[in-house]
Amino acid sequence: MIRIGIVGASGYTAGELLKILQRHPHVEVVRATSRQNCGNSVASSHAHLAKYSDLTFSTFEIQDFLDADVKCAFTCLPHAASAKAVMQLLDHGIKVIDFSADYRLNDVATFEQWYQVTHPDPDRVGTVPYGLPELFRDEIKAANLVANPGCFPTTAILPLAPLVKNELVMANPIIVDSKSGISGAGRNPKSHLHFPEANESVSAYSIGTHRHGPEIEQILTRSTKSNPQVVFTPHLIPMDRGILSTIYLRPTSGQGINETKLCLEQMYRDEPFVRLRATPPRTKDVINSNFGDIHVAANGDHLILICAIDNLVKGASGAAVQNFNLLFEFPETTGLI
Amino acid sequence: MIRIGIVGASGYTAGELLKILQRHPHVEVVRATSRQNCGNSVASSHAHLAKYSDLTFSTFEIQDFLDADVKCAFTCLPHAASAKAVMQLLDHGIKVIDFSADYRLNDVATFEQWYQVTHPDPDRVGTVPYGLPELFRDEIKAANLVANPGCFPTTAILPLAPLVKNELVMANPIIVDSKSGISGAGRNPKSHLHFPEANESVSAYSIGTHRHGPEIEQILTRSTKSNPQVVFTPHLIPMDRGILSTIYLRPTSGQGINETKLCLEQMYRDEPFVRLRATPPRTKDVINSNFGDIHVAANGDHLILICAIDNLVKGASGAAVQNFNLLFEFPETTGLI
Amino acid sequence: MIRIGIVGASGYTAGELLKILQRHPHVEVVRATSRQNCGNSVASSHAHLAKYSDLTFSTFEIQDFLDADVKCAFTCLPHAASAKAVMQLLDHGIKVIDFSADYRLNDVATFEQWYQVTHPDPDRVGTVPYGLPELFRDEIKAANLVANPGCFPTTAILPLAPLVKNELVMANPIIVDSKSGISGAGRNPKSHLHFPEANESVSAYSIGTHRHGPEIEQILTRSTKSNPQVVFTPHLIPMDRGILSTIYLRPTSGQGINETKLCLEQMYRDEPFVRLRATPPRTKDVINSNFGDIHVAANGDHLILICAIDNLVKGASGAAVQNFNLLFEFPETTGLI
Amino acid sequence: MIRIGIVGASGYTAGELLKILQRHPHVEVVRATSRQNCGNSVASSHAHLAKYSDLTFSTFEIQDFLDADVKCAFTCLPHAASAKAVMQLLDHGIKVIDFSADYRLNDVATFEQWYQVTHPDPDRVGTVPYGLPELFRDEIKAANLVANPGCFPTTAILPLAPLVKNELVMANPIIVDSKSGISGAGRNPKSHLHFPEANESVSAYSIGTHRHGPEIEQILTRSTKSNPQVVFTPHLIPMDRGILSTIYLRPTSGQGINETKLCLEQMYRDEPFVRLRATPPRTKDVINSNFGDIHVAANGDHLILICAIDNLVKGASGAAVQNFNLLFEFPETTGLI
Repeated sequence: MIRIGIVGASGYTAGELLKILQRHPHVEVVRATSRQNCGNSVASSHAHLAKYSDLTFSTFEIQDFLDADVKCAFTCLPHAASAKAVMQLLDHGIKVIDFSADYRLNDVATFEQWYQVTHPDPDRVGTVPYGLPELFRDEIKAANLVANPGCFPTTAILPLAPLVKNELVMANPIIVDSKSGISGAGRNPKSHLHFPEANESVSAYSIGTHRHGPEIEQILTRSTKSNPQVVFTPHLIPMDRGILSTIYLRPTSGQGINETKLCLEQMYRDEPFVRLRATPPRTKDVINSNFGDIHVAANGDHLILICAIDNLVKGASGAAVQNFNLLFEFPETTGLI
Repeated sequence: MIRIGIVGASGYTAGELLKILQRHPHVEVVRATSRQNCGNSVASSHAHLAKYSDLTFSTFEIQDFLDADVKCAFTCLPHAASAKAVMQLLDHGIKVIDFSADYRLNDVATFEQWYQVTHPDPDRVGTVPYGLPELFRDEIKAANLVANPGCFPTTAILPLAPLVKNELVMANPIIVDSKSGISGAGRNPKSHLHFPEANESVSAYSIGTHRHGPEIEQILTRSTKSNPQVVFTPHLIPMDRGILSTIYLRPTSGQGINETKLCLEQMYRDEPFVRLRATPPRTKDVINSNFGDIHVAANGDHLILICAIDNLVKGASGAAVQNFNLLFEFPETTGLI
Repeated sequence: MIRIGIVGASGYTAGELLKILQRHPHVEVVRATSRQNCGNSVASSHAHLAKYSDLTFSTFEIQDFLDADVKCAFTCLPHAASAKAVMQLLDHGIKVIDFSADYRLNDVATFEQWYQVTHPDPDRVGTVPYGLPELFRDEIKAANLVANPGCFPTTAILPLAPLVKNELVMANPIIVDSKSGISGAGRNPKSHLHFPEANESVSAYSIGTHRHGPEIEQILTRSTKSNPQVVFTPHLIPMDRGILSTIYLRPTSGQGINETKLCLEQMYRDEPFVRLRATPPRTKDVINSNFGDIHVAANGDHLILICAIDNLVKGASGAAVQNFNLLFEFPETTGLI
Repeated sequence: MIRIGIVGASGYTAGELLKILQRHPHVEVVRATSRQNCGNSVASSHAHLAKYSDLTFSTFEIQDFLDADVKCAFTCLPHAASAKAVMQLLDHGIKVIDFSADYRLNDVATFEQWYQVTHPDPDRVGTVPYGLPELFRDEIKAANLVANPGCFPTTAILPLAPLVKNELVMANPIIVDSKSGISGAGRNPKSHLHFPEANESVSAYSIGTHRHGPEIEQILTRSTKSNPQVVFTPHLIPMDRGILSTIYLRPTSGQGINETKLCLEQMYRDEPFVRLRATPPRTKDVINSNFGDIHVAANGDHLILICAIDNLVKGASGAAVQNFNLLFEFPETTGLI
């Protein structure tokens, strides 16, 4: 049994992580930290754990993690705060899967421009594998730290990376129109997420300013050696979970929809969690699963790629457990089917 | 044109009130107060007013209302705070429809027991007509102040009052199981009303402790001279608007379902907003309308009454405009069809 | 009072039309036809009419409309069937607002290609004003027949037409990513619209094959003399009503976001139902209203236009009443505020 | 590996069953029948199985089940049809967990009165254990056939049986007001379950006529030797899954809320899937789990019991796997945590 600690364990992604880990045959969660809920039972925040966990929220102290013999930590803190915890954990030999954006980007300058904070651990930026096993499996296996992907970027990079890399599509512009369930906005109540405000309504937000835009561009650059330009617009949808991204771009000269499909099929044929779908997937098809469903269509001279995931699973905690399994040499699907 | 002021105008009921009044041919809203939003346009809180209102939120000052020649005020403040505003308005000859619970109950002791505050205006308690025109029309017409009913009580009193008064049903116990959309919980964001918490979920709350329990009992007592015992349980339903109450009680000896229906039909035949329905009404049938739909059924030796309203219309602002029309001698349906 | 007949009156758009007309001071609905529901009360399909309408569904017979002295008909039939009714009505001097696509397009060939049916009234195609008063007011006023716009095209044409006409934007490609509530799919139950299938899910449909794609292109061509290429993708959103379209395109050289906003402001300043919004509109802001809300944003070298409407109001029955008011010389906002 | 066949495998309960069995380490689903979908892949109806199942729907033939060496069948057919399949399966030595109502009731007369059909297998009625392990575990272990409980009855019987049996509560009347998500109404599209009809609405249905009323009464009679009278009213709630039942009854003389809680705690302390909750449970707390959450409250002289389950899990397929585990001597929680 691998002993696990979760840093920042009161939010939705941590709740989903605890749910998945409860089914994982080779782990034991021995620490779950939350400054706000310190001393409360973990079940008070995550009702599904009642009767099956007597874990209590603690505050994060590295010595406490060492005392508990934690071998792997999942860090679910806000950006910059996360890196500070990550540095301590790595220094003491604890492997880390980091849910924040701190180690996702290729360079410190872009991070600091978009996150408006000095990076606490600049030297590691650009050296940490991006936790999409479908693209970076070998690097992840060899790592002590994995940068778990953002939810929106997962829906863009999965269908785009193979096509951009093989130069089947033009990398500029790539229009990514994403629709997300509201759990993606986190667990803190806010006016615009109050039920009677968010229900029965759709809206766009952070147009041109969402931090997942540069993340998509940088990871595509890293995985494809191209220089894509992404126009990314997220939308809030009145549902709990799920992201559907609709991606508009042009094929390179002479490429048709069949070559596009073939490229994705070859890429993902043996991937346990990526499914090429003959019809447009619904987010409902992937909810509560670690699947990423992809569909390819055409409209005139444009290609349209659809990708659906559960933002809390393949977009966060499912991917994290996939990465954990790689770090600790378990079969990649353990706990995830 | 009757000049209107709304005190506490930033919430959902005030938003609905503004929407109804915008269609009313004989009114002009000249003041809308909100301490929090003072100085902001009313449209910033109520998007439907954009392009049609240049009203700005002000703070409530009685002199300002007099300067504006306000003839009628709708007070939508928390309990106790509302009574303080009502006292000032009445003192200066402004008629008031009060949305709070301050003047609904029959006696000060019950108010102070349930609301845990000293009543600022105890002498008026018990003298103010309860704003259900279907039961108290004549008193309302003669009044300067109307206590606008609570949303849940409306769904209980409308079907129950005629039956209790005519001794067709046993008044003890009356079980009222109510299901409410989430706008009924107000506009302030709270953890349990955060979209991903409230969506796709049903729960009971305030079991045995909701303040609308004694309101139902006292108004039934007032209108029927009986002494009913009500067991009231409200539930939160994942929808914006609407209340459905399911009421369980026993007929008095010898009374059948047909006599029950007949009694309600006779009572409400000429009422513009109460409809006896042959099949169980859906809240959707009454949404965005001032209707109260009632259905009568039986199960063994129990009668089951169903009543559906829109909590923001017949349960609040529609009833308020009905009361306004009575106070100012407009046809009762003006602005409400 | 203008006597009104509604042909095909059992669906959602007809229900909304009846609701609006009930508030209109100058009309009387004297006929409502429905083959399926013939003989049933109109209230049995549209609960909001109970207690206020004793209308019964009839079958459509032109003589019956003449006997009833119908002066204006709203036709809500499937394509081709609608044109057949329209021809009869016009022949007998009854003005018509047609909700179908039969008279929207510029030429018969495009109609027949997309609708796969021989047009019953080919000579009128291309001569009928498109019922967006904001663009075609003068033609509508002079007409006996108006082609009421499609719901998706309204959200695309309103923001695009002024910009394309003034050559502020490139007309090729224009990417229109639309999100629609499920009432837009009609009232007939289907597997994918069954509540447990459609709820908590988003999906794209009719990618590259939706008939509103050519409608957007043809009306833009008609109103702007340009030849736009539109890539249109509709999505189903788990909500009753509302469409939000997110439109991606490039400005022509030298044009910035401010010139774009200025153009739209000048175009729509005096329009009662089009609102330029400083922040991205939510569909909730326009639900149950005839508003079309537009927002302009930029992302890198792309312009992003957002347009929100209620698909059943500005996208159907509200626009229809706007057109009716023009045909019969009532103030354009009558019944619609 | 126990070889499993599912008879009637295209609906929601079968979909959930397949999902649970996919995680069960000791089973292999080798047959899934559906007359309508015969020849299609099971994944075409249950998207979560794509990439992980190459099962194809077949028609039910007993010989085919024998050829496939099926050791246990789950029958998810309509009433009467189910019993016919059950008879064949049992005759050939295949154990059965039956989802229909055919073997739930105590006597044939009650079955035939409520289901209006001649029972195909009358001799077995009244001899088959009711598949609530919490109440009938020993009988289930010894059986070849289990009658899997109805969803609503589970929410009533779990909290009521211990209290009625111990004479802590009056058994007449017991008022059960139930709120169910819409998956409980099945997968066939119907007008009142069409998304725009069912969404944003609550309604009662089958008042006094729902077949789960007598089921609750008969199973309570069987487990408690009392003769309870149940007034049962189900309601449709705009959500996918979950049932919350609110139960109103009176304690017997001298019994207080604490004795009630104590009785339930003693009964369910060691049950893996029943949780006594200190605050009113939300259906969200039990969604996608096999938990039944119970809360006890009081209002005046009435007791109020709340019980929440996922109708597709503890109310159907989770309970079925619990029963399967008992039949085949696996730990009862296998596949269910």
